[in-house]
Amino acid sequence: MILSATAFAVSVGSAHASDSYSPVTSERLKDPEASNWLHWRGNYEGWGYSPLDQINTTNVADLEVAWTISSGVTEGHEAAPIVNDGMMFVTGAYNNLYALDATTGELLWHYKRQLPEDVVVCCDVVNRGVAVHGDTVYMGTLDAHLLAFDAESGKIKWDITVENYKDRYALTSAPVIIDDNIIVGVHGGEYGVRGFIAAYDVNSGEETWKTFTAVDDGSWPGDTYEHGGAPPWLSGTYDEETNTLFWGTGNPSPWIDPARGDDHDLRWSVSVVALNPDTGELKDAYQYSPNDAWDYDGTNEPMLIDIDGEPSIVSPQRNGWLYRLSRDNGEIDFVDAWPFAETNIYADMGTDGVPIVDAAHRPAVGKTVDACPAFLGAKNWMPAAYDPNTELMYVPTNEWCMKIRGAQVEYSAGQPYVGAEFEMYQVPGNDHVGQLQAIDPATGDVAWANNFTAPLWSGVLTTGGGVVFTGNLDERKFMAFDAENGDELWSMTTNSGIVGTPVSYSVDGTQYVAVWSGFGGAIPLWAGPVAQLTENIPMGGTLWVFKLKQSWTTKG
Amino acid sequence: MILSATAFAVSVGSAHASDSYSPVTSERLKDPEASNWLHWRGNYEGWGYSPLDQINTTNVADLEVAWTISSGVTEGHEAAPIVNDGMMFVTGAYNNLYALDATTGELLWHYKRQLPEDVVVCCDVVNRGVAVHGDTVYMGTLDAHLLAFDAESGKIKWDITVENYKDRYALTSAPVIIDDNIIVGVHGGEYGVRGFIAAYDVNSGEETWKTFTAVDDGSWPGDTYEHGGAPPWLSGTYDEETNTLFWGTGNPSPWIDPARGDDHDLRWSVSVVALNPDTGELKDAYQYSPNDAWDYDGTNEPMLIDIDGEPSIVSPQRNGWLYRLSRDNGEIDFVDAWPFAETNIYADMGTDGVPIVDAAHRPAVGKTVDACPAFLGAKNWMPAAYDPNTELMYVPTNEWCMKIRGAQVEYSAGQPYVGAEFEMYQVPGNDHVGQLQAIDPATGDVAWANNFTAPLWSGVLTTGGGVVFTGNLDERKFMAFDAENGDELWSMTTNSGIVGTPVSYSVDGTQYVAVWSGFGGAIPLWAGPVAQLTENIPMGGTLWVFKLKQSWTTKG
Repeated sequence: MILSATAFAVSVGSAHASDSYSPVTSERLKDPEASNWLHWRGNYEGWGYSPLDQINTTNVADLEVAWTISSGVTEGHEAAPIVNDGMMFVTGAYNNLYALDATTGELLWHYKRQLPEDVVVCCDVVNRGVAVHGDTVYMGTLDAHLLAFDAESGKIKWDITVENYKDRYALTSAPVIIDDNIIVGVHGGEYGVRGFIAAYDVNSGEETWKTFTAVDDGSWPGDTYEHGGAPPWLSGTYDEETNTLFWGTGNPSPWIDPARGDDHDLRWSVSVVALNPDTGELKDAYQYSPNDAWDYDGTNEPMLIDIDGEPSIVSPQRNGWLYRLSRDNGEIDFVDAWPFAETNIYADMGTDGVPIVDAAHRPAVGKTVDACPAFLGAKNWMPAAYDPNTELMYVPTNEWCMKIRGAQVEYSAGQPYVGAEFEMYQVPGNDHVGQLQAIDPATGDVAWANNFTAPLWSGVLTTGGGVVFTGNLDERKFMAFDAENGDELWSMTTNSGIVGTPVSYSVDGTQYVAVWSGFGGAIPLWAGPVAQLTENIPMGGTLWVFKLKQSWTTKG
Repeated sequence: MILSATAFAVSVGSAHASDSYSPVTSERLKDPEASNWLHWRGNYEGWGYSPLDQINTTNVADLEVAWTISSGVTEGHEAAPIVNDGMMFVTGAYNNLYALDATTGELLWHYKRQLPEDVVVCCDVVNRGVAVHGDTVYMGTLDAHLLAFDAESGKIKWDITVENYKDRYALTSAPVIIDDNIIVGVHGGEYGVRGFIAAYDVNSGEETWKTFTAVDDGSWPGDTYEHGGAPPWLSGTYDEETNTLFWGTGNPSPWIDPARGDDHDLRWSVSVVALNPDTGELKDAYQYSPNDAWDYDGTNEPMLIDIDGEPSIVSPQRNGWLYRLSRDNGEIDFVDAWPFAETNIYADMGTDGVPIVDAAHRPAVGKTVDACPAFLGAKNWMPAAYDPNTELMYVPTNEWCMKIRGAQVEYSAGQPYVGAEFEMYQVPGNDHVGQLQAIDPATGDVAWANNFTAPLWSGVLTTGGGVVFTGNLDERKFMAFDAENGDELWSMTTNSGIVGTPVSYSVDGTQYVAVWSGFGGAIPLWAGPVAQLTENIPMGGTLWVFKLKQSWTTKG
């Protein structure tokens, strides 16, 4: 349209951060140094916790900007930066990947995926981060490829097709690397994909194994599992001791299907599965929401926490319940669950961990119901964090409901396959949608909660300094809270609404905190009238990196 | 292409900054309060000087971010924010206009011009700022409209067509308001427009007068003035005492035309004209570059400075000479000129102020020459600033040359009408292109100069605190220098390369400094091989607002 409206140029440069990139061994991934951030959640257990304590409750008010950089694109910027000995790898929207000097923000190389024109993803063009191993950086793409880059040069080592993007398979989250396997889960539950988790050799890219999450076990009528969704589109966690990979799975496709009937569990949709990461063999599974009709994906992070010596999985689910499960020997058993948001679907929880459904809130074709939480969930993708010092988890939640009814739909490759019409609304009488809740994972007790007018859609970081970081939308604020009591200790008004995943790292004795500010993601696309709370938020991705003013860092 | 790639939504909100917007009277424009920034250069004289001194050389190192906001778009962000009693009006690329709370960054309203698909501008989709008068905000657009907005609500009061954008007329700079006239100059010198300055009634938008800058005075062969360019595309300055408007004009169209011959002055291209702002009557003019063949627009700011009691115009020109002119009674006379950059075109300056051309460097059809400065100029649009305390001006300059030769061209409405081919290069042996030069406007003596590897393309701000602010490109730094000696006192690594125009204002006793970081403008489009110095700069507009840490502001 306009002569000078040139797009942000693709450039894969050849600059080097250093002549000695530190290879990321399997041992380092299992026991990451406090100074680095090698997994999207900092460790295999999915804690989002940095042991660094230079930035703490007494000095966090003296944070200042170390550096910033634009992504050159708008839409949702959800990724966690990965940092390895002073070199940062971070993704923006549209599969832009940037390698940066983690101390100065110097751009070392940049890769921009040339996405096919006909790529369609349901819920924004996001990417949640890369994985690192050896001297390689791995990124999944919106067109369902998995790419391996040389960490120093940005050169592509290999590029494999995980599945056909024309059927709406996509990769949006950080791969998980366990020894020589790089493991990904696919996206596409609104298009009738058949969900799977697959592993590839870190060196060659050859497929090691592939395990479907919509299974042919009689819990689906006929062959409906073939387009049954259950996409494991977020990243899993890993229990080294039992060599078990835990991974959450999404909604069944379609959400509602009269032909399918209401008496099928539709396994393993809306579940957490336990796999052997070497073979992909299913060890066990637990279904949060059998026969889900409300888009209550079970993809949220299965956080691995020992509670009173008991190896546990704790996961705050879209359906509004915080689940505590045991995970002895890779077997998953229900322990307890507590509602952390308005829910009228699951009136109560059975002692066996099967939720008790209030049929009045179950939609069908021709039957419109009010249902809480709304389909975007009491908690969505944005990861909670766990602090091993306070033994609390910090959960970004939302209170909202929806009107929903069933709609006839037939499967057609690449077409939406939802079977529902819906509109979200705020809980009447509430003055807020978002909440940051500090919850005891042993008991479900809420230690403190802070309210936010607009939805909360940012990940959470906990630190050894007793500071909890997250960002909000309508105020564009990146904020620091006291982990003990939730007091706000510091904030900064950033460029956009924050839907990023904050991380922390240190280089040469200086601790940094990094986060994207770049509004987008599912809220502006799908929140309906609730999106009015966010309508004045400008888009545009900027990565922010903070540190203490020099006077503190030299003392620290 | 991608379902969720929604553009930044247009929204003209109805939020109010306050219930009592402060009307901008003609008196306030003539004598603006130190706390406000009512003109794009702060005053009618074009100084880019804020008298505020809370931020000064002793404490500027303690600047911190007050707030930031994304524009939601990429490309060049060159505008100066305008601030009136705590309410800010600032434009981004593509004629986005934002009204903000100047202390918190709260977005009060946003207007996004729906530009026609066939709008073409030669040199990026920039806008350099709005003008304010009464309770109205005025913006010129890339499709050559002039819009009047209600300052509080953002509602459009009127929208007039200044000229036909299909002929490539455009408005990119801040209008100048003098009493009841809002005055604009058009853009389009690369498309054979006939340049003009026009005035409209601030209330009704009706045209008051229109004065062509390519004049029918015999200095053009035949009727070539009809497509003769001379576009006055930057903003003029105003001498209240003599009621004279001074305005710079651009290159002749085309640059080179064998049919036109080499013995015509082509008035008033590459000139400064003096007009009666009430009538548009031409009082006088001075031509920097008669019969220009190198794209040496004379549009750069005619800064109005009294030098030793002598009312003067000082202007650093694209041709590499700093001109000192007298302006008694609105009459312009040459006083002196000094080269401030490599120039091989004008070997010397005549005592009458007519430059002496070295014909060896004059291009023609079939004749390729080396010419310095390059066509982007020893100084381009980015405004210099004047500090009345140091009595120095601070000029952002660039050292570069070009190969250029003539090319046959015929006028066709809306088509490029340049008549030249060209490629820029860095001056051999130089380790830098950009310079910030502190120059004595009385003598042309350089007090100090700081070098920058990449071109400098940001405006400059001077302050009563003795601090000079500007930004660079390749390091993405916004920087503070000591006005006396050029020492760097502070810098911050921003999101993008800086091509903005910094300003300062205060609200409730706190001084702020604001600047866009958003790379774009002419460099990435036209600098040829020199653009390699800027190829790793990410795009994306973020407005930065700084203040001192609280401990200083309470002392201040």
